[in-house]
Amino acid sequence: MITTPTLLVNEQVCRDNIRRMIGLARHNHIQFRPHFKTHQSAEIGQWFLEEGTSKITASSLSMAACFAEAGWKDITVAFPVNVREMETINQLAGRITLNLLVESVEAVKLLGLGLTSPVNVFIKLDVGTHRTGIDPENEKAIREVMAEIRKSKRMQFVGVLCHAGHSYQCRGKQEILAVHSAVMTVLQKIKSTYSDIPDLVISYGDTPTCSVADSFPNVAELRPGNFVFYDLMQWQIGSCQASDIGVAVACPVVAKHPERNEVVIYGGAVHFSKDFVEENGRKVYGKLAIDRGEGWEGLREDVTLIRLSQEHGILQGPDAWVASVKIGDLVKIIPVHSCLTMDLLRGFEVV
Amino acid sequence: MITTPTLLVNEQVCRDNIRRMIGLARHNHIQFRPHFKTHQSAEIGQWFLEEGTSKITASSLSMAACFAEAGWKDITVAFPVNVREMETINQLAGRITLNLLVESVEAVKLLGLGLTSPVNVFIKLDVGTHRTGIDPENEKAIREVMAEIRKSKRMQFVGVLCHAGHSYQCRGKQEILAVHSAVMTVLQKIKSTYSDIPDLVISYGDTPTCSVADSFPNVAELRPGNFVFYDLMQWQIGSCQASDIGVAVACPVVAKHPERNEVVIYGGAVHFSKDFVEENGRKVYGKLAIDRGEGWEGLREDVTLIRLSQEHGILQGPDAWVASVKIGDLVKIIPVHSCLTMDLLRGFEVV
Repeated sequence: MITTPTLLVNEQVCRDNIRRMIGLARHNHIQFRPHFKTHQSAEIGQWFLEEGTSKITASSLSMAACFAEAGWKDITVAFPVNVREMETINQLAGRITLNLLVESVEAVKLLGLGLTSPVNVFIKLDVGTHRTGIDPENEKAIREVMAEIRKSKRMQFVGVLCHAGHSYQCRGKQEILAVHSAVMTVLQKIKSTYSDIPDLVISYGDTPTCSVADSFPNVAELRPGNFVFYDLMQWQIGSCQASDIGVAVACPVVAKHPERNEVVIYGGAVHFSKDFVEENGRKVYGKLAIDRGEGWEGLREDVTLIRLSQEHGILQGPDAWVASVKIGDLVKIIPVHSCLTMDLLRGFEVV
Repeated sequence: MITTPTLLVNEQVCRDNIRRMIGLARHNHIQFRPHFKTHQSAEIGQWFLEEGTSKITASSLSMAACFAEAGWKDITVAFPVNVREMETINQLAGRITLNLLVESVEAVKLLGLGLTSPVNVFIKLDVGTHRTGIDPENEKAIREVMAEIRKSKRMQFVGVLCHAGHSYQCRGKQEILAVHSAVMTVLQKIKSTYSDIPDLVISYGDTPTCSVADSFPNVAELRPGNFVFYDLMQWQIGSCQASDIGVAVACPVVAKHPERNEVVIYGGAVHFSKDFVEENGRKVYGKLAIDRGEGWEGLREDVTLIRLSQEHGILQGPDAWVASVKIGDLVKIIPVHSCLTMDLLRGFEVV
């Protein structure tokens, strides 16, 4: 019996999501390198392995170390290299193919000073998210970093890595496709600017564009992550249908307030995270999943997780739903951001 | 050497915060029962023990079980009782003084059906936060719950418990004192309405009012939690001075973008949580702490953590500060919400 907030994973849905994304990469003759930060799970990693995945992405060196321990041999850490972790870098570089990310001469120099084993290096380009990366128009800066990488015996320059994270601001397929199209134009320009490097690898990937677009010209490698689970945010963005969402959080009902159409659940910020989407100017932390046996099927747009404190969640819904819920019941919630929810709950039950 | 995002705890500041709050409770002849959800740490629990604390508050039964394991003998779970965890309740009730919270006849009945050991029971009243609890004006509902509790041989009715969580909306001492005053009026009315129960315990506590108010008439027990660390949110509310904040997060610098006055740190939503305060319409996830040896002293209002993704944080500050920061440096950040940051980082270094 489930007694505390518990992450449920629908294996069938997740495996379908994995197969669909692998199919897209194969159809486009692109290397698939899924981001494992979403699930951070050796078990779910196996589902990818069984579908033919051999190369993966992680968001930290410690996460890469965990997956190396689980047997993965080729890992990209898609995060500007943290030169304070040279010991972990060298340990990993000594046992697997480790691909690192840089975006400045300064970082390459520091990396070069500490490396004792060979690594592959990508330059991070900013294709519109303005979080990290060099402006693709700044050829001088890019060439300088390339030159600095080539000075090191232990660094192999591989290519450029980009992430269209601004696709998370989209709502609907047309907006996602517009972002995708703009990024593809940038990548085309990169290919022609660096035509002197014919084997330049372009690594690309974010869940919205990879879920909606069909073709990825000039892309050599695809790195989406969230698609294995999807979540309420991706559903609101337009990356998936409700039936594609592979995770829900089962939470005990602890109190009811019919006078304000609210049900209080044991399930708060330490389970869901405080990430939210907006709906009619109101914060939304989750939606009720429609109960079905051990699992669920779809979601109810009219029952919304409207508030979270450390352990409390407040669900608001119509009279009839509030009346149907009893203290001690288990309700299932589709979380806003599956990566953060998985990180918080650190474990799951397969349904 | 610190290589990854690490919570730093200033023991001196925390011990001073503990002593100040204990002094307030003693001065008012009130039982002190601090909320341990903020730190969730056996080691910091010892600091309270050394100052004479014997009774504590937790926000979940599993947290209560951890602190029972660490030797605490009298624990209130300040969360509507989760009747799906009867096994944990009975185990705890068999070995410590366990105080539970109810707010409906339905919950009391379910609790009564499962109890095999004695527990103390508080009724949760809603003094203005509208999260959980019975409206204090609703004497009929309160008397019905009391009567239901008294039907059970294993439940001992103790009193009412309330939390002025709406004090978190305040900005400045005057607003906090206004909330406090309104709640004190409610408590006075409760005392006179239930004058037939002369030993009725009123348990009260939230960090803002307990940090600012001097007197707590009719309150028998004080339960603040966050005050041990404070954080940027409490500083913005007006509960503390910057020098009272006992935690900071040390984060490696991984990239710089002087063209937009930004520094990228390894430190994101999985370290800080996505809780935020607002400042001039902009989200603020933290402020730079002023470096001082292993620790820090005060904060810089002009250097702000403005964006978080899973592992990335973006700090924005003036030109001179950006120019002074180097890749590989460690920066220290005052987090917005210390409870959630502590929950995420699950460990700390004492400075």
